[in-house]
Amino acid sequence: MHTKYVYFFGGGHADGHGKMKEELGGKGAGLAEMTNAQLPVPPGFTISTRACVAYFQQGGKLPPEVDPRTAEALARLEELQGQKLGDPEDPLLVSVRSGAKFSMPGMMDTILNLGLNDRSAEALARKSGNPRWAYDSYRRFIQMFGNVVLEIPKEEFEHIFDGQKKKAKAKLDTELSSENLKNVVAEYKKLVRKKTGQPFPQEARGQLKMARDAVFRSWNNKRATTYRRLNNIPDDLGTAVNVQAMVFGNLGETSGTGVGFTRNPSTGDNEFYGEFLMNAQGEDVVSGVRTPVPIRELEAIMPEVYRQLREITTRLEQHYKDVQDFEFTIQEGKLYMLQTRNGKRTGKAAVKIAVDMVSEGLLTKREALLRVEPGQLDQLLHPLLAEDAKGVLAAAGNERLKHVATGLPASPGAAVGRVVFTADETVEQGAKYPVILVRAETVPDDIHGMEVAKGILTSRGGMTSHAAVVTRGMGKCCVAGAGAINVNAEKKQAAVGSLVIQEGDWISLDGSTGRVFLGQAKTMEPDPASGDFATFMGWADEVRKLGVRANADIPRDAQAARRFGAEGIGLCRTEHMFFAADRLPHMQTMILADNEKDRRKALNKLLPMQRKDFEGLFKAMDGYPVIIRTLDPPLHEFLPKREDLMVEVALMKARKAPKKKIEEKEKLLQRVEDLHEFNPMLGLRGCRLGIVYPEITEMQARAIIQAAVNVAKKGVKVIPEIMIPLVGTRRELTLQKDICDKVAEEVFAKAGTRVKYMVGTMIEIPRAALTADEVAKDAEFFSFGTNDLTQTTYGFSRDDSGKFLKPYVDLKILKNDPFAVLDETGVGQLVDMATKKGRQSRPELEVGICGEHGGEPNSVMFCHRVGLDYVSCSPYRVPIARLAAAQAVLLEGSKEEAMRTA
Amino acid sequence: MHTKYVYFFGGGHADGHGKMKEELGGKGAGLAEMTNAQLPVPPGFTISTRACVAYFQQGGKLPPEVDPRTAEALARLEELQGQKLGDPEDPLLVSVRSGAKFSMPGMMDTILNLGLNDRSAEALARKSGNPRWAYDSYRRFIQMFGNVVLEIPKEEFEHIFDGQKKKAKAKLDTELSSENLKNVVAEYKKLVRKKTGQPFPQEARGQLKMARDAVFRSWNNKRATTYRRLNNIPDDLGTAVNVQAMVFGNLGETSGTGVGFTRNPSTGDNEFYGEFLMNAQGEDVVSGVRTPVPIRELEAIMPEVYRQLREITTRLEQHYKDVQDFEFTIQEGKLYMLQTRNGKRTGKAAVKIAVDMVSEGLLTKREALLRVEPGQLDQLLHPLLAEDAKGVLAAAGNERLKHVATGLPASPGAAVGRVVFTADETVEQGAKYPVILVRAETVPDDIHGMEVAKGILTSRGGMTSHAAVVTRGMGKCCVAGAGAINVNAEKKQAAVGSLVIQEGDWISLDGSTGRVFLGQAKTMEPDPASGDFATFMGWADEVRKLGVRANADIPRDAQAARRFGAEGIGLCRTEHMFFAADRLPHMQTMILADNEKDRRKALNKLLPMQRKDFEGLFKAMDGYPVIIRTLDPPLHEFLPKREDLMVEVALMKARKAPKKKIEEKEKLLQRVEDLHEFNPMLGLRGCRLGIVYPEITEMQARAIIQAAVNVAKKGVKVIPEIMIPLVGTRRELTLQKDICDKVAEEVFAKAGTRVKYMVGTMIEIPRAALTADEVAKDAEFFSFGTNDLTQTTYGFSRDDSGKFLKPYVDLKILKNDPFAVLDETGVGQLVDMATKKGRQSRPELEVGICGEHGGEPNSVMFCHRVGLDYVSCSPYRVPIARLAAAQAVLLEGSKEEAMRTA
Repeated sequence: MHTKYVYFFGGGHADGHGKMKEELGGKGAGLAEMTNAQLPVPPGFTISTRACVAYFQQGGKLPPEVDPRTAEALARLEELQGQKLGDPEDPLLVSVRSGAKFSMPGMMDTILNLGLNDRSAEALARKSGNPRWAYDSYRRFIQMFGNVVLEIPKEEFEHIFDGQKKKAKAKLDTELSSENLKNVVAEYKKLVRKKTGQPFPQEARGQLKMARDAVFRSWNNKRATTYRRLNNIPDDLGTAVNVQAMVFGNLGETSGTGVGFTRNPSTGDNEFYGEFLMNAQGEDVVSGVRTPVPIRELEAIMPEVYRQLREITTRLEQHYKDVQDFEFTIQEGKLYMLQTRNGKRTGKAAVKIAVDMVSEGLLTKREALLRVEPGQLDQLLHPLLAEDAKGVLAAAGNERLKHVATGLPASPGAAVGRVVFTADETVEQGAKYPVILVRAETVPDDIHGMEVAKGILTSRGGMTSHAAVVTRGMGKCCVAGAGAINVNAEKKQAAVGSLVIQEGDWISLDGSTGRVFLGQAKTMEPDPASGDFATFMGWADEVRKLGVRANADIPRDAQAARRFGAEGIGLCRTEHMFFAADRLPHMQTMILADNEKDRRKALNKLLPMQRKDFEGLFKAMDGYPVIIRTLDPPLHEFLPKREDLMVEVALMKARKAPKKKIEEKEKLLQRVEDLHEFNPMLGLRGCRLGIVYPEITEMQARAIIQAAVNVAKKGVKVIPEIMIPLVGTRRELTLQKDICDKVAEEVFAKAGTRVKYMVGTMIEIPRAALTADEVAKDAEFFSFGTNDLTQTTYGFSRDDSGKFLKPYVDLKILKNDPFAVLDETGVGQLVDMATKKGRQSRPELEVGICGEHGGEPNSVMFCHRVGLDYVSCSPYRVPIARLAAAQAVLLEGSKEEAMRTA
Repeated sequence: MHTKYVYFFGGGHADGHGKMKEELGGKGAGLAEMTNAQLPVPPGFTISTRACVAYFQQGGKLPPEVDPRTAEALARLEELQGQKLGDPEDPLLVSVRSGAKFSMPGMMDTILNLGLNDRSAEALARKSGNPRWAYDSYRRFIQMFGNVVLEIPKEEFEHIFDGQKKKAKAKLDTELSSENLKNVVAEYKKLVRKKTGQPFPQEARGQLKMARDAVFRSWNNKRATTYRRLNNIPDDLGTAVNVQAMVFGNLGETSGTGVGFTRNPSTGDNEFYGEFLMNAQGEDVVSGVRTPVPIRELEAIMPEVYRQLREITTRLEQHYKDVQDFEFTIQEGKLYMLQTRNGKRTGKAAVKIAVDMVSEGLLTKREALLRVEPGQLDQLLHPLLAEDAKGVLAAAGNERLKHVATGLPASPGAAVGRVVFTADETVEQGAKYPVILVRAETVPDDIHGMEVAKGILTSRGGMTSHAAVVTRGMGKCCVAGAGAINVNAEKKQAAVGSLVIQEGDWISLDGSTGRVFLGQAKTMEPDPASGDFATFMGWADEVRKLGVRANADIPRDAQAARRFGAEGIGLCRTEHMFFAADRLPHMQTMILADNEKDRRKALNKLLPMQRKDFEGLFKAMDGYPVIIRTLDPPLHEFLPKREDLMVEVALMKARKAPKKKIEEKEKLLQRVEDLHEFNPMLGLRGCRLGIVYPEITEMQARAIIQAAVNVAKKGVKVIPEIMIPLVGTRRELTLQKDICDKVAEEVFAKAGTRVKYMVGTMIEIPRAALTADEVAKDAEFFSFGTNDLTQTTYGFSRDDSGKFLKPYVDLKILKNDPFAVLDETGVGQLVDMATKKGRQSRPELEVGICGEHGGEPNSVMFCHRVGLDYVSCSPYRVPIARLAAAQAVLLEGSKEEAMRTA
């Protein structure tokens, strides 16, 4: 059997079809699909990827059949269109486009208006009565052909064009006359001759061959090979070439062009949506030079075309079972569909459309679940900056909004308030009006201010910086690491270049994009528990296998988590409780004690407070598990900063303060010095604290078990799980578990009752993952702390990596910020290994993840694939995780999954 | 076939032999071996480990054959000794000892003098004419039996004994009379009755059975099971029980006891060496109450016994092919050998003995290589604190030495000098007399002082702290992390408790033990390149397969490395060059520059200096490879400290300094703030620097390649290897390698000549190890940076882990400091994985290690086992690595190796 190299499409029938992406590329397959669906697509033909592969195998020569087959297809096209390529009087014009199996945006070369030459351009001008259009088309063709085929730098053409504009004193391209454009053409041709030593090719069939070969060659240009390497696309696939008849919407008053959606992409309402312009080209609609007209008005102008367009787009929506974003052109009264694709939409629209399409019988529930990007749900759960009809942000006052900086979208939502620079000011001024806390970076000391602020803005730190993590937990808007802003808390001002933001100035944050505005924006509250949303999430829960828990430290967060559908708490960070005003002094006393007895005394003060917190969590999670992590952060986080104390001491001495006061401060400094660490992330923290000071673990275990017993007595079903952090060797866990078990027995004996509890560990140190078979002998559950595991696996401090993560993503060293999207290759390898090894030793081991990745859709899908039992994330991300978990099931074994994991 | 449970030894023949450790345990096998070698060993029998295993399997009951077989063996023993166990007039006394296949020191229970009771003690007193001895023997027996068998706490016996001493106003045990001891016995017996409700058992055979069962049970006591778990000794081996006739050296003037060595363990000289006492027990020789007599004098007192002892010990040395450390007892003119084992010796002696034994034909060279612990070689390469004949340290002046603290033995050797507290003082005062630099911790800024100081003492930091690493590289003595010392550099004093050390005081450091002495000790220079040493190292080089390179930063170190036998440089840390006084200013200018142009200007100043350094290294390593690492540390290490600047600025403001000066200082502070990192170890360092500032890598690559070309032109064989640090993903290396290759081509083109060079990477980030197959596609060599790899795999900062490493080792969480001895289970797993994955992609990949572990014997053996090509370590550790590498070959597949890896 002969290899088929050329596939025709047109006249209601295509040689290929939509599934032939391998041979026809994505674009070619789509054109065939639309043609077969009887859509009025400009006809043409696709030269197969096989020709491209052969071209490279044979060192730049095509198989002999390609030329005759191409000539045949071209003849069919000419017949169908009633025009001939290269005809001096009525030329057929075609576009030549690449199109590979996998979309490779940015490397695609396109040549439009092929077939024009000096004579046919002149004929076109005459025939159309529109010489400006004819010469503009010709000069565009020379420019694209010159660049793509003849490899003349774009800039050289632009230089000529700009020169002509200057001469004509034209600001816009459209202000150039046909004479101006003729001059451009003349100079372009001179340029071509100068660069290639040859005149610009006038013979149309020759143009076509040259364009085809150039497109084939572009498969191996540097951009394309790099893109393929980064995206793991095989090098031997090759690209197809699509040759298609050109259509024009600017041939007079019966021509036109437009874009539209089959449903409203902003609200999801089932209404025909879009806009158009008569006697215009596609770029006129989007450039804003002329104001486009709402698409419904087309009905009055060309009722038959409008009816046909509605009918076609409805059919398209039903064919693709999704909202269609389409482009059309009307050439002299005849409608052509140029493109259709699934339409982008807001989160709100996505959910509404998915639910509607199920009621309409268009989609099954399972299909509907795949129509919403999990990350989009975020928009339904947080307030948003309000936009006017044109998508321009609306100001609340008279003052205009000024976009001053962009940071990381650290915690979604919108926040509007007056600027404050310290946590104390936040509390004070926050009582009077909405405030935004602006800091270089936040520290645990700032918690009281962060609780009050409407939003947080920091100039340093990444997606998992303190500010980001804490605000996401609170469901509060945060823009982090906005490096352009220079915060000077002492002077109570922040500078962005020459602009100075003072305390009290209004600013507005968009936590979903990271944008920072000077001025007071209008916000809108979304409808978080709308009927559609609840219906949709219910379907997700029916499908998913992965459990979804929430990270919550206090009862209020736990209640929010339940509302968002969390099935338990995957991580309660007990240390967050110690920063409260009534607790911090005891915590500090404990840390400053230099013997066990004094430490125990302070811990005894903390015990009832912790117990009460835990009781609240257990009540909120009646029937669901609650994982409580023992103390994790380095102790100096609870004390004043070393450098601040050093300055204070120096100043006290300089000012000759009373000797006793100096000594007191020096003593505190000495203790802070003792606790000072060069790399606190790798220092005395996590279970190392509980091992060096076993009495801390003892107190916490006692508070947990006592709380569990107390609440259980009231008829609540408690499922406590005690989690030991930062374990690197099994014996660390053994020693800490021994303490928990001993304390539990004491509490049970005293209470005269028992509750079931588990002791497990976080896997957040590479060594724990490497030796997970050993660790699992003592651990009843594993929870991957992928924040820390990412830090140690990469050797990246999440607080410091901001400086190089951006260049790293720009240089394509990293695909994503690994603190935002789990690195499946490296960190994921450890997760997979530890899960397997752990279950080897203990088949019933419960395995979950409680790092920030637990709420990131791709990471959730990875967790499903490696067989975790649950993910845990901020309460506000729980719906996202639920949907991602459902999609993971639906995509299992599919091509989409193969692509994701490639 | 019946299982044999009881093995007799005595009368010149044993049922078992030395290879039966499985059944007889180590001790039992040794006794059988000595008996078969016709040595006069007190006879006895061993009850097999199989009896112990059966005892536990049957829930505390022995197989029925054990009792009759034991009775038979006991009868043979009684016959041989002419005494009967439990005989009221002339009782046979026996010892009962445990002894498992693997030595388990500290869990062993021993019962001596078993067979005594009220009547036989009395008879013994009468018969020996030595009632004191008889009752002392009896009370010791009751105490041991009471504790081991009857489980009465030791303290209760000691309480009674101390009470009796107080009553008798005796300071030493020996001052108690036989009457006093009789009272002790009486009270001991009362205690037993009170605790057990039974009188102390008087029936000797019953005593024996009870003792035997108690020893069996001790196999499963908590100490023993913990020890086995930690040492990976299987729980089902069981212990044997050894029952052996007692002998006594204190029965009169024809009795005696002594210890000795077959050669001088201090010098290695082939001379009979030891001491003895007549009419004494073993403990009298070591307790110092009586002064023992040199062993040669025994010849005059008992010529026949002396002749026999010499003959036996010579035979033992030849049998075991090693120096023997033996114990003997003469009971009434008859010589008994109680123990013999391979003797401990100094490094110097070890080498001399090994070489001598080869000349004597006693050992092959390969055997001799296994007779020296690699770590001992250290003693041959550094000065030592001089000891007098009694092992007491000798003072240089009149003042006595006072041992004031013990830190970590961070860098071996001895150092004596006057205390200084800053690097500048070190340089100033070091010009006048020897000085020791005492710091809380050293920083790169201190280098100029460290170069001058005789030794370094720090109160913080571990075995791989800055002070430790740098001094080991310099071969200079260092005691690090002596936490008892409080350094106050400002006041120029250091406190140890109430003792205050002032600037100018003499102190002495023992870098091999970590001891710190106040006062001026005498030192002695060893003979580093003695003939024996050279001969011995030559044999090691013949055997080993692993290459040994050195870590050396400057030509002087490189020359030292060659003298110690290094075959190349495995790591040159280029940043150490930047701290020199002529370079630091340019480095700082480079860092403070805020644009590429200014950075390049400063780098251009550094280029010729780096080139010169590299030329020196290449010359020193003519024909050997030189691995040069590009810039690694975070940039703020080159700038003043942030907190110091903060204090300065605050003080300048308080003192109203000129505004311009304040602003200048604030600008510097701002830049330091910009560079400030929470966890610099995980921040902008390593190749991240070279990626963010490619011009740095460019300059360094240029300096390396230019140096190589220049030196090669002079006929030196250069083998440059450029090493990119801290790679975590392949593309980091790709980008850095591209720079190196581009620069190299430029240099070659200009020079008109080429040199071969390689580009490779350190593997020091877990992710690099996990993805080593990918990384190896661009890396021509791997070098494991096991310091950093240990930090990230464990999540331990080497600068901060001092606080918990000690408790971790005490609590047996860690076997060793993982920065000193490579963690084979975790870090080693990554090393092994990366080596395999790397060679999968690139079979010819050169793989080595350049972390501090490269000079630690166990780690070197691990490197051999996983198939590395070479290790690299401090120059002074090169001989250690050479020997360890040879031993790794010799031990391949042996039991010793199995034990190490277990």
